[in-house]
Amino acid sequence: VSRAERLWTIVVGGGSGSRFGRLKQYEPIGGERVIDRSRRVAEQVSEGVVLVVPPSDAAREHGVAGGNTRSESVRAGLAAVPAEATVICVHDAARPLATAALYERVVGAVVDGADAAVPGVAVTDTIKVVDAGGVVATLDRSTLVAVQTPQAFRADVLRSAHQGEATATDDAALVEAAGGRVVVVEGEADNVKITRTDDLDRVRRIVGEERA
Amino acid sequence: VSRAERLWTIVVGGGSGSRFGRLKQYEPIGGERVIDRSRRVAEQVSEGVVLVVPPSDAAREHGVAGGNTRSESVRAGLAAVPAEATVICVHDAARPLATAALYERVVGAVVDGADAAVPGVAVTDTIKVVDAGGVVATLDRSTLVAVQTPQAFRADVLRSAHQGEATATDDAALVEAAGGRVVVVEGEADNVKITRTDDLDRVRRIVGEERA
Repeated sequence: VSRAERLWTIVVGGGSGSRFGRLKQYEPIGGERVIDRSRRVAEQVSEGVVLVVPPSDAAREHGVAGGNTRSESVRAGLAAVPAEATVICVHDAARPLATAALYERVVGAVVDGADAAVPGVAVTDTIKVVDAGGVVATLDRSTLVAVQTPQAFRADVLRSAHQGEATATDDAALVEAAGGRVVVVEGEADNVKITRTDDLDRVRRIVGEERA
Repeated sequence: VSRAERLWTIVVGGGSGSRFGRLKQYEPIGGERVIDRSRRVAEQVSEGVVLVVPPSDAAREHGVAGGNTRSESVRAGLAAVPAEATVICVHDAARPLATAALYERVVGAVVDGADAAVPGVAVTDTIKVVDAGGVVATLDRSTLVAVQTPQAFRADVLRSAHQGEATATDDAALVEAAGGRVVVVEGEADNVKITRTDDLDRVRRIVGEERA
């Protein structure tokens, strides 16, 4: 990151309304918890990191209390990012394998002039659009990307996208809706989002190979 | 399957131009090869099964020689399906965990009047449409499905969709393009397509749990 830029990262580790039965972000992978690895990598590249966790865990985790939706949790994190930040990354705690190199790529794209940058990987499944009557269209897979985090934002762009009560599962979509320019950088195949038990197994296997 | 219907299944196990370094369809899972399990389940529900394999393997596997593209391989299989078939399923050999119940669902939808039926599962990643300038749109994930096989077709619909040299990674897309009605039935989370080594690991783990 260029010296003129000041990068902060918000690691979003769940609000009060979790989709998980048990919070997978607290599971151990290779000697540390999922959330600790996500925070550790963010700290390697950022001037500061704000961790957002369920309200009941905020004191224990030295984090900020999340909200009822992902967007509310991001806004809670954003409120704790100092005004001096010029670039802000938002990262899902549930993606512990994102590398420092991936942060550098998304941040680099913003430093180079994009309003926001997201990692994307090729879509391997055929994707169809459906409605109640059946299939409406089969999409051209070559034009699609599956989006990951960390996502990087020019700080004022992210702050203005989150004014009001906007809700999105993806922060970059708010920037797109406001007319901002969002670019896609190459994502990482191993940057798994842990949503199911077998995702956790896969992450543990990858971490095991790192150490072997 | 209703007595009036005669179901044949084409199990597509790769043409001459394979994307795999080593053909994963010949790897063992739980005491049988991937392709043998795919064929076995197809045989449970079908009057007959046509297996399409790389030309060099056709004699050994008692299969039909595949072509240079997936569509050519499907056409090679189709040529070996008897004219009496009224419903034809097309299934990827690389999806060994599709169940007989899933076949029943797609075939049932065709028997009920659809031109074709495909299994679909919810899309969990955010999907964006991109062009050279960056992100063009973020799709409404609730309208999207990721498509699996087996796919079932009214026989004459599939045959006419494959007249000529049409190419598609997904047969149902040919039917859609011809104006046919394609419906989506609930897919199966475990119906993994084996494309990478970790997919194979995942399939082996699922098969291990079946037997435990």
